[in-house]
Amino acid sequence: MWAAGAQRRAGLALAAAAAAALALALAAWRRRRQPVREVLFFPSRLSCTEELLAEAAGTGAAARPCPCPLPRGDCSLSRLLRRLLSARRSLEICLFAFSSPQLGRAVQLLHRRGVRVRVVTDAQYMGLRGSQIGLLRHAGIQVRHDQENGYMHHKFAIVDRRMLITGSLNWTTQAIQTNRENVLVVEDAEYVKPFLDEFERIWEEYNPIHYRFFSKDNK
Amino acid sequence: MWAAGAQRRAGLALAAAAAAALALALAAWRRRRQPVREVLFFPSRLSCTEELLAEAAGTGAAARPCPCPLPRGDCSLSRLLRRLLSARRSLEICLFAFSSPQLGRAVQLLHRRGVRVRVVTDAQYMGLRGSQIGLLRHAGIQVRHDQENGYMHHKFAIVDRRMLITGSLNWTTQAIQTNRENVLVVEDAEYVKPFLDEFERIWEEYNPIHYRFFSKDNK
Repeated sequence: MWAAGAQRRAGLALAAAAAAALALALAAWRRRRQPVREVLFFPSRLSCTEELLAEAAGTGAAARPCPCPLPRGDCSLSRLLRRLLSARRSLEICLFAFSSPQLGRAVQLLHRRGVRVRVVTDAQYMGLRGSQIGLLRHAGIQVRHDQENGYMHHKFAIVDRRMLITGSLNWTTQAIQTNRENVLVVEDAEYVKPFLDEFERIWEEYNPIHYRFFSKDNK
Repeated sequence: MWAAGAQRRAGLALAAAAAAALALALAAWRRRRQPVREVLFFPSRLSCTEELLAEAAGTGAAARPCPCPLPRGDCSLSRLLRRLLSARRSLEICLFAFSSPQLGRAVQLLHRRGVRVRVVTDAQYMGLRGSQIGLLRHAGIQVRHDQENGYMHHKFAIVDRRMLITGSLNWTTQAIQTNRENVLVVEDAEYVKPFLDEFERIWEEYNPIHYRFFSKDNK
């Protein structure tokens, strides 16, 4: 009877240990960070993004609220800005057209914060009135452009080599405020990795050592 | 001792049953269908898509190979066509510009096969030379367009309400053959559902009962 009792106790202890291990594994599985999967649609509701940008710049926005009459609160543009401003180490941008002042300020702010920013854009659109490309170059951000007949028509960004932001949206005020547009925010490696590779491929192809002089009309 | 032996046997049987259940659950987990996650980049390698389209139309392409000199084989365009042609029940298309003859043929073919095709497009671009929109309407496919100041700038399609095809690519020969473009193929419900909702929202907003007469210059 003593042997049977000991066996029973040993069995119970074993079962308890197994249950505890299973519970710990389940808890860890539940706690694991889910990849971000978000969809933003445009036109974006009009909303003031001053406080968001000032807060990110650390200029004490809370003390001096923006006096503009635009409504406050979340909108597709503010959510896009927040995703971008989450960058800590690197930001790759590959954009056909870039003229949004808010998104331009966010990119300059990240550059000042020490994030490694690289921009690829289309040669024909970078010189248009209102383009942010000249301002980014002036701020010391590396920009490369195509010299091809076709358009560099991508519209994506990659934050810290782990978050892809891509869709139909060019970063222009017209697109943000009046067009029907979409943006996907993606952390699944099956998507992020090919876009990182595409960026590095284009970055090398558009290296200024390969630039030829050409007239705008040739394009 | 008999009682202890019985207990041991019962314990062993229980452990074996638990192990078998665990193995079955693991096998089912491994067998579950992984969602499609694909990225296509453009410009697409030039390649003949005649046999792919003829095969999908059931016109016996294998017996009469295409005599054109283009290379055979897989390319981004043929992979995009294959994803579209997998539609069995429904196809929603929401496109800024649609002029690719190959993609136009694929959509008409699906319509003839009984797939419910609905198209949303931009008013300003649907009348341009080479647009497929007139041909689709002529074939009896429902098309709706915007009447807004902004562009209907989306570039997405949804196959059988479960597969989203979206990116920077307009369905034009210029974009396919000469631009830097991307297309994501996605089955994760977190992305497909919002795009389905966006399509239905736009489909209702662009209902012809709401159309006003307006001159092209007003846009």
